[in-house]
Amino acid sequence: MPSAKRAATHRAPRKPVARSPRRDVGRPRGEPVTEAVLDRTLEELASVGPAQLSVERIARAAEVNKTSIYRRWPTREALVAAALERVLTHLSLAQKDTGSLRGDLLFLGESVAGFLDQPAGQALMRAVFMEAVAPSIAALARRQLEERAGSPAVAMVLRARARGEWRDDADPKVVLSMLVGALLHRVALERQRPTRAWLGGVVAVLLRGVT
Amino acid sequence: MPSAKRAATHRAPRKPVARSPRRDVGRPRGEPVTEAVLDRTLEELASVGPAQLSVERIARAAEVNKTSIYRRWPTREALVAAALERVLTHLSLAQKDTGSLRGDLLFLGESVAGFLDQPAGQALMRAVFMEAVAPSIAALARRQLEERAGSPAVAMVLRARARGEWRDDADPKVVLSMLVGALLHRVALERQRPTRAWLGGVVAVLLRGVT
Repeated sequence: MPSAKRAATHRAPRKPVARSPRRDVGRPRGEPVTEAVLDRTLEELASVGPAQLSVERIARAAEVNKTSIYRRWPTREALVAAALERVLTHLSLAQKDTGSLRGDLLFLGESVAGFLDQPAGQALMRAVFMEAVAPSIAALARRQLEERAGSPAVAMVLRARARGEWRDDADPKVVLSMLVGALLHRVALERQRPTRAWLGGVVAVLLRGVT
Repeated sequence: MPSAKRAATHRAPRKPVARSPRRDVGRPRGEPVTEAVLDRTLEELASVGPAQLSVERIARAAEVNKTSIYRRWPTREALVAAALERVLTHLSLAQKDTGSLRGDLLFLGESVAGFLDQPAGQALMRAVFMEAVAPSIAALARRQLEERAGSPAVAMVLRARARGEWRDDADPKVVLSMLVGALLHRVALERQRPTRAWLGGVVAVLLRGVT
């Protein structure tokens, strides 16, 4: 990312930042103010959820004027959409060919576990589970999650099929929902870390189930 | 339930109901007012979640005075606890010996799916996923869910072991989290009904995985 260096300073500004007169709508990424606002939006989503999200509180935490938030993201939905968009960068690492279905499943499981452990993942989960309160945000979160988790999973299954490790009648989407669902259950309901041993147990059942 | 008849009329009272002077703390179940308040509390939990739950709105919906709610349940936590307690009756049907592990898994899956389809189930899920906002309520919801779903699952596994349908190295808790987790994923993330065919796919993978 070319913006990594500038992003690292995004907590610095103490006052509302004076904007240059040129339009910057076309390149929102990489600007310290933008990143600070979106990071604070994710944290706000993760802690209070979409229903109680306050632009005022986000502006205060990011140390910018509320008006400079509304100038870029005219609605709350637009702001949340941009913040969730950022979440995707955290999920994209889940693509890797380890050479075996077991390795690929473990890698995918660890990626999702790591994601759920971050504010970004928690923000996405809360957005999804508060469907009734903020349906448009929930729909957006769901779509983004499906797009991101879906394609590495499809690639994994194609590789497994080519190696003869995947029986024809096992539905890839069902298997993915069992893996991700077990992680959700572990993290949100059992409130326990998905350890390597635990994940190994899940993957062992899945492997016998699909091979 | 001895109160079924009276419960059916719980929407009727148009005015705050005059309470008799005797204490009725010891038998809250079966009283129309109590049931109306707890049902409205569950609906409120299901629609807005624990953070935005309003006793005022619950009182209005149940057509009682706010004071008569606070008389029985002095705190918001106590009210939510009582409402979640009621949820358990919906989950308790998940105990049945169908004679085979496949049948038991399908039955358990269908019970959980039916539960997640009700306001009670949605209330419980929201309470769990809004951990950061209402930690005491989330902890309560989690404990109740674990107690309820846990014991039928243990019984199911013991039966399966006795029939030689369960391998020693398959952890019952892991398998349960895969089944319930897949259902959560299907309902909350994919926003699709867990059809019999879909559930059959999940159970087929689990069966091969644990037998």
